[in-house]
Amino acid sequence: MRLSTLFLRTLREDPADAELPGHKLLVRAGYVRRAAPGIYSWLPLGLKVLRKVEDIVREEMDAIGGQELSFPALLPREPYEATGRWTEYGDNIFRLKDRKDGDYLLGPTHEEMFTLTVKDMYSSYKELPLTLYQIQTKYRDEARPRAGLLRGREFIMKDSYSFDVDDAGLEAAYQRHRAAYVKIFDRLGFDYVIVYADSGAMGGSASEEFLAVSPVGEDTFVRCEASGYAANVEAVVVPQAQPVDASAVPAAHVEDTPDSPTIDTLVTRSDALHPRADGRGWTAADTLKNVVVMLTHPDGSTEPLAIGLPGDREVDDKRLAAQVAPAEWAPFEEKDFAAYPMLTKGYIGPTMLGLESPSKIRYLLDPSVAEGSAWVTGADEHGKHVYDLVLGRDFTADGTVQAAEIREGDPSPDGAGPLTLARGIEMGHIFQLGRKYAEALDLKVLDENGKLVTVTMGSYGVGVSRAVAAVAEATHDEIGLCWPRELAPADVHVVATGKDRAVFDHAELLVGDLEASGLSVIFDDRPKVSPGVKFKDAELLGVPTIVVVGRGLEQGTVEIKDRRTGNRREVPVGRAVGEVLAEVRGEATSTGADATSASAPA
Amino acid sequence: MRLSTLFLRTLREDPADAELPGHKLLVRAGYVRRAAPGIYSWLPLGLKVLRKVEDIVREEMDAIGGQELSFPALLPREPYEATGRWTEYGDNIFRLKDRKDGDYLLGPTHEEMFTLTVKDMYSSYKELPLTLYQIQTKYRDEARPRAGLLRGREFIMKDSYSFDVDDAGLEAAYQRHRAAYVKIFDRLGFDYVIVYADSGAMGGSASEEFLAVSPVGEDTFVRCEASGYAANVEAVVVPQAQPVDASAVPAAHVEDTPDSPTIDTLVTRSDALHPRADGRGWTAADTLKNVVVMLTHPDGSTEPLAIGLPGDREVDDKRLAAQVAPAEWAPFEEKDFAAYPMLTKGYIGPTMLGLESPSKIRYLLDPSVAEGSAWVTGADEHGKHVYDLVLGRDFTADGTVQAAEIREGDPSPDGAGPLTLARGIEMGHIFQLGRKYAEALDLKVLDENGKLVTVTMGSYGVGVSRAVAAVAEATHDEIGLCWPRELAPADVHVVATGKDRAVFDHAELLVGDLEASGLSVIFDDRPKVSPGVKFKDAELLGVPTIVVVGRGLEQGTVEIKDRRTGNRREVPVGRAVGEVLAEVRGEATSTGADATSASAPA
Repeated sequence: MRLSTLFLRTLREDPADAELPGHKLLVRAGYVRRAAPGIYSWLPLGLKVLRKVEDIVREEMDAIGGQELSFPALLPREPYEATGRWTEYGDNIFRLKDRKDGDYLLGPTHEEMFTLTVKDMYSSYKELPLTLYQIQTKYRDEARPRAGLLRGREFIMKDSYSFDVDDAGLEAAYQRHRAAYVKIFDRLGFDYVIVYADSGAMGGSASEEFLAVSPVGEDTFVRCEASGYAANVEAVVVPQAQPVDASAVPAAHVEDTPDSPTIDTLVTRSDALHPRADGRGWTAADTLKNVVVMLTHPDGSTEPLAIGLPGDREVDDKRLAAQVAPAEWAPFEEKDFAAYPMLTKGYIGPTMLGLESPSKIRYLLDPSVAEGSAWVTGADEHGKHVYDLVLGRDFTADGTVQAAEIREGDPSPDGAGPLTLARGIEMGHIFQLGRKYAEALDLKVLDENGKLVTVTMGSYGVGVSRAVAAVAEATHDEIGLCWPRELAPADVHVVATGKDRAVFDHAELLVGDLEASGLSVIFDDRPKVSPGVKFKDAELLGVPTIVVVGRGLEQGTVEIKDRRTGNRREVPVGRAVGEVLAEVRGEATSTGADATSASAPA
Repeated sequence: MRLSTLFLRTLREDPADAELPGHKLLVRAGYVRRAAPGIYSWLPLGLKVLRKVEDIVREEMDAIGGQELSFPALLPREPYEATGRWTEYGDNIFRLKDRKDGDYLLGPTHEEMFTLTVKDMYSSYKELPLTLYQIQTKYRDEARPRAGLLRGREFIMKDSYSFDVDDAGLEAAYQRHRAAYVKIFDRLGFDYVIVYADSGAMGGSASEEFLAVSPVGEDTFVRCEASGYAANVEAVVVPQAQPVDASAVPAAHVEDTPDSPTIDTLVTRSDALHPRADGRGWTAADTLKNVVVMLTHPDGSTEPLAIGLPGDREVDDKRLAAQVAPAEWAPFEEKDFAAYPMLTKGYIGPTMLGLESPSKIRYLLDPSVAEGSAWVTGADEHGKHVYDLVLGRDFTADGTVQAAEIREGDPSPDGAGPLTLARGIEMGHIFQLGRKYAEALDLKVLDENGKLVTVTMGSYGVGVSRAVAAVAEATHDEIGLCWPRELAPADVHVVATGKDRAVFDHAELLVGDLEASGLSVIFDDRPKVSPGVKFKDAELLGVPTIVVVGRGLEQGTVEIKDRRTGNRREVPVGRAVGEVLAEVRGEATSTGADATSASAPA
């Protein structure tokens, strides 16, 4: 590729429509362009990187026996109606009608199509196990298309599906995929973590996500250094607290706590009006906060839900969302309080919750609230709270819910030590779907006894276009993109500087030699562009190895520069190809300026 | 690929949803499956063939300096509004709304996106010429999705666009594409023809189509053996007939011709009631037929159009459609006759047409109607015709129209000899668009004098998924598919027959050796399938070279069979790999049964 003809214009200014630093660089470096919100065009360099991700994914899927096929993106409604997803997806899918008024959607994932195709073609356990995959364009009408390619509305995914006759087969298929994904993400060349994931609205059981560790990630995950435990916050299961002895706790008593509708004001009022006998001050952790939300189910029906949790914790929006899916939740509004007059805003207590009357409000407790523990909490009356209210003695709940925030330093669910929190970008998801789709679409095969059994499935995804963006976010630096070798749009970027004809001729020869050695080259052969602009462009484009042909030529050398470290060294012209080849192949080379110690040309 | 595990089930029966023989075979052989009308899934073997077509197209586009990028399929309305195509496409595009009620379409072709992207990135003549392309999924909501993949509603196309500063540049880009297309279609390995094409609704000037010659094609084309002239029927320009001397023609006279609303009845009545003085019988060619149709313009307005042509010719639906595009035409209905009472159905004559009053009906003549020629035609009165009506003397028209059918044996427009007719499948289209899109979207660059000039464009398409279907139609035989080498899903199909363990072991070794030689292999290793079924499947799948490992093994030979010719020969086991390699590489080999004369292993 020659920059004199490559369809590329680099930008010095950040684009107005980009949020994240990696995304800004992808636009500035001419890899992608926005066509509409969440919808991108891939320019020549971006397409090269995208194809490299595809190739890596394809190779590793083939290596575990995956068979590639390709389903349409434009799909009829019926199969999605059969599994309920036509409705469940709500506004999140694009729906359209054809000229005959037939209903279609743009496929968000293809469980239905894979299931139906296997159903049509296979009928016996002897034909299983089977793994099918596709690398294909998918569509989701995201409410807030965010951060460029990270959460697009048109995007490329590898989705694969395993089909097995029993749970052991599914587990084996899942582990094969897990191993393949480790290879894929190792090859993509950036920092990632495998976390337990919530199975969410997809149904099914075991589920893990591969997250790119990145401060700009949408997902928060926890890690325990001691045990290696790692989970998406949605998937953290806080253990049920052990019962405590409540025999010494006085009887519950309602007290005046004027103007204390928040935890902070309640603590202040309690210290002032109802100090503890032992002199310890009250803390938020002594209070039980009751949060009421309104759920909307996929069929449109609504239902209130109350959550009781220690006053020093907030409800985590995403953890709650994962728990109530496929329903969606929203904060209680004034009209909701009006509909449930037994709830006293700011003073809600457990005694009005979970009852069958006057109106049932389901009441779920955070698992850290122990049987026998005593709390300060709302007394269901304006300006009053109840003290020494004991779980099990004075109030009960309908169950527990994993909805409270997880905090840095919380104990790991496996008991091994404290948790640390970080952010990540979801790059892959592996998932034991089980029999949900096979049951809905009636995918059965004959087992060895001639009996029809429902097939069990796994579903496995890699965000291919997202990977390009995630790698850009994870690997860029201040001055530009900084691609891992396997993803770079070229192996080497050759810059010819100056106005001397001989420089360009030499560079041309070098480029020919590099290409003859099987390397792909970006050659900055632009005649009237200053060296400074050329260097800046090379840094922006982010090819790992940069070769500068210029001033050194008089001494018979060219400069080889490592894009990431910035290390540069002069090497004799005759050895340049060998040195570059060694770098590309990851062989040991001299990194200092001492060219004489460089390895011999390959 | 092993048939014991390949996701493939061949069918013995023709699928109900397939029309054409090649398409039936693609479904029966497990290459594709219908997901919805005009929408197909690509199963593993089909996807391999599709990818091979893509690779050929990509290589040849790269070879002429084309730069690949990839635009979205889901596109915003605005650019298509700017060029008028949002409306012009009518029901032929899929439109949809996003959750914010924004208008989108699924891209049918991408002129707008390419034009806008070049406009944003380029500004000088120095940056041109430029050729960009993509291989991408496209959508058209066809009224009658026909013949499987030949005219799908979701399909894969290579579309490319050239950008030049002047007409000479456009012509050069067009010729580069033409040469690349010749290479592409030569490599696809089937009979094709390059024909002059009608530019149709796309606007623009020079235009040629690459047609796969096929009796099931939708397009009719003509050829002149003598000159090599070839054209789509829509593009045939019948020359204007030379004026003839009308001085001896008697004055026009209206005659009674009861019950003669058709050309046949008119000829019969004329012979009976108004025989010619010279005794020659009347023929349909002596009559002038006037056909009235109703045009509907893209803006919804309508307009009648009358066409006069010799009575022995029909109006060709497609030629007329090409002439009136972007308007659409429909036959005159009773309500239309009611609206134009001066038209006497069955007896329409030129004297009521082309007049400014009482209502203007535009009247166009077939160019074979010569100035000075005399006709029998309608007298605009029920049961009456007019005789000896002379063009120029007794009637005139508003112009000519190329709408009459072209017939086998008609003179070639270049005067070189008679035309022959055949049918073809449109595989590629190259097209000098000119400045239509650049003007609509304001794509201008500075020329060498610093003046803004509008860029001129070419548009070039290859139907990639259609090519798979067209090649299947063009190359299959009675017993199955029959792929050209470059497109076959594998180089060789190895069949192990019988129940003998040694046969399978030998076949396994052979497959290993073939793969180690760089060949791709389909290996029929199914243990309990009869040789007959295996042979049938091999013939159905259509890999060019079939190797049978079986009975011959006792004599130390395997059979190599050519799928197309059916020729078979026994070769010593030790030479099988070399023989197959030679076949795959197209080197001369013995084709008879005399194995001893076979060429040595490579």
